[in-house]
Amino acid sequence: MNRMIILTEAELRKIVVLDRDAVACIEQAFAALATKAVAMPPILRLDIPEYRGEVDVKTAYVPGIEGFAIKISPGFFDNPTIGLPSTNGMMVLLSCRTGLVQALLLDNGYLTDVRTAAAGAVAAKYLSRQDSSVAAIFGAGMQARLQLEALTLVRPIAEARIWARDAAKAQKAAAELSGELGFPVIATSDPREAISSADIIVTTTPAQKPIVEAGWLESGQHLTAMGSDAEHKNEIDPAAIARAGLYVADSLKQTRRLGELHHAIEAGLVAADADFAELGRIVSGRTPGRTSSDQITIADLTGTGIQDTAIATLAFARAGAMKAGTTFES
Amino acid sequence: MNRMIILTEAELRKIVVLDRDAVACIEQAFAALATKAVAMPPILRLDIPEYRGEVDVKTAYVPGIEGFAIKISPGFFDNPTIGLPSTNGMMVLLSCRTGLVQALLLDNGYLTDVRTAAAGAVAAKYLSRQDSSVAAIFGAGMQARLQLEALTLVRPIAEARIWARDAAKAQKAAAELSGELGFPVIATSDPREAISSADIIVTTTPAQKPIVEAGWLESGQHLTAMGSDAEHKNEIDPAAIARAGLYVADSLKQTRRLGELHHAIEAGLVAADADFAELGRIVSGRTPGRTSSDQITIADLTGTGIQDTAIATLAFARAGAMKAGTTFES
Repeated sequence: MNRMIILTEAELRKIVVLDRDAVACIEQAFAALATKAVAMPPILRLDIPEYRGEVDVKTAYVPGIEGFAIKISPGFFDNPTIGLPSTNGMMVLLSCRTGLVQALLLDNGYLTDVRTAAAGAVAAKYLSRQDSSVAAIFGAGMQARLQLEALTLVRPIAEARIWARDAAKAQKAAAELSGELGFPVIATSDPREAISSADIIVTTTPAQKPIVEAGWLESGQHLTAMGSDAEHKNEIDPAAIARAGLYVADSLKQTRRLGELHHAIEAGLVAADADFAELGRIVSGRTPGRTSSDQITIADLTGTGIQDTAIATLAFARAGAMKAGTTFES
Repeated sequence: MNRMIILTEAELRKIVVLDRDAVACIEQAFAALATKAVAMPPILRLDIPEYRGEVDVKTAYVPGIEGFAIKISPGFFDNPTIGLPSTNGMMVLLSCRTGLVQALLLDNGYLTDVRTAAAGAVAAKYLSRQDSSVAAIFGAGMQARLQLEALTLVRPIAEARIWARDAAKAQKAAAELSGELGFPVIATSDPREAISSADIIVTTTPAQKPIVEAGWLESGQHLTAMGSDAEHKNEIDPAAIARAGLYVADSLKQTRRLGELHHAIEAGLVAADADFAELGRIVSGRTPGRTSSDQITIADLTGTGIQDTAIATLAFARAGAMKAGTTFES
């Protein structure tokens, strides 16, 4: 018999929120990726085109962390037509000493939302100018909102613009975020206008063709692209990757195959084996981040298993301390 | 909120047993693999050598089956020193229409045991001589016992031999199986003697060096090797693969990389791109199985995600019909 804890989404929402602790947790995970013998196998991906569905399974073992998460992330894009969210999923936390299941985190994708937004904050912390105050957000979904919130944890954001393909959604998100965050958030229908004189740009869309042109980027700007996590997704003009003063991957192995870098390589603008910095090497001080105030920096985030292991471990520790969740034996 | 069923190992042991239904379920899964647009991505594998641990994650989508399983199979080989089984794990069953979790099957590896043994029965049904009555089993663990039991479901087995590296274990298993199955099961310390004049041989060990020599195989014998599911595992002399009249893979893509075939390719005895039959093509009548009574046939089973999806779907359907399990919302 094995005893495990089951945590519901409602419980997890109380235990883990997008705050400085969550950002620090993900920051440490990236540092571990650069400094420890992390084992992070390629993502398992299953496509079910019949129902416009896809499932990613990610995992990572980080020496020194007692457990490792196996995360199941489904995305079924016809779900909204029947009143269900497109993305959901769960994490299983296993002991790295025995392989026994320690916890089932039935988060419906909530922990992924948090750890993904936290990675945006980590990227901005090391790559954007310290005085960054104007943010431009592409997309108007949950991640768009969380990415803006995440930026406020690391930079003195005082103004934001939102662009989305669906203008009504952008306006709704802008109005709500203005209220929540206490600074002006304005929807714009012109993507170039959104970028103009922004300090930090974050793209959070499922675009399959670039929505940001290379020529629009201005010196000193930082851009985080986090929408692309599959071969066919592409938010940023490949020329921007080649043009950036500093390109940083969450995992170079992944961005060469799944991220914006992949399209720059395919377009012949970057060599397939070109070496670039990884976020963890910058976080851990092994490679410099931004080195001047006029550099254009780009962070290419595809999502990594270490983030899942880190956030699941945080949730499990807090559940233990707060005696949250349901104990289950099998 | 999503509603799911949680089934414990004890509940699953009542719902699904190794019987003709389970064999038919796995037989149909193999047929589907050959006849439908099955999506079965490469196995995700994480190694944690620090604790002699490994985890495999398998999945497969079979058109026409409502759900698909994601199976987490840890093997932690120091566990017995602290009184825990080496292998455990669970399955998550998701809807292939919405990606929502339908069931958590907390089977601690039990369903894997059943579907693996059932595949042995399917291989024997299509590849061994119909009058096969003498079985030789290599290994004395759970799978060794289940594989012998599985053979009795498809062939008139009347006698069996067991060989294991640990002679005491072989004797214990032989005594217990004699009692359970009602025919003589004898332990032997000589692997060649075990094979001599047997009709069906099944190897179920974690051997990393061949335990069956090519020269020992006799005309008309069928051998199923199911121990190897990783690059470094190897039960059968590579020359036996080259010598067999009929070599059959559960998944050629997998056995070229993980199975006995892999070692025959490495030894240069078989071309890397040599084409062989797959079990599903034989089950579905697309390729002949055994064509003569003196042929030596070999089935190389590495374990496939379709088997997991099939057995999980069977368990879920039966749990629904029997109103078994605990309903959980998150």
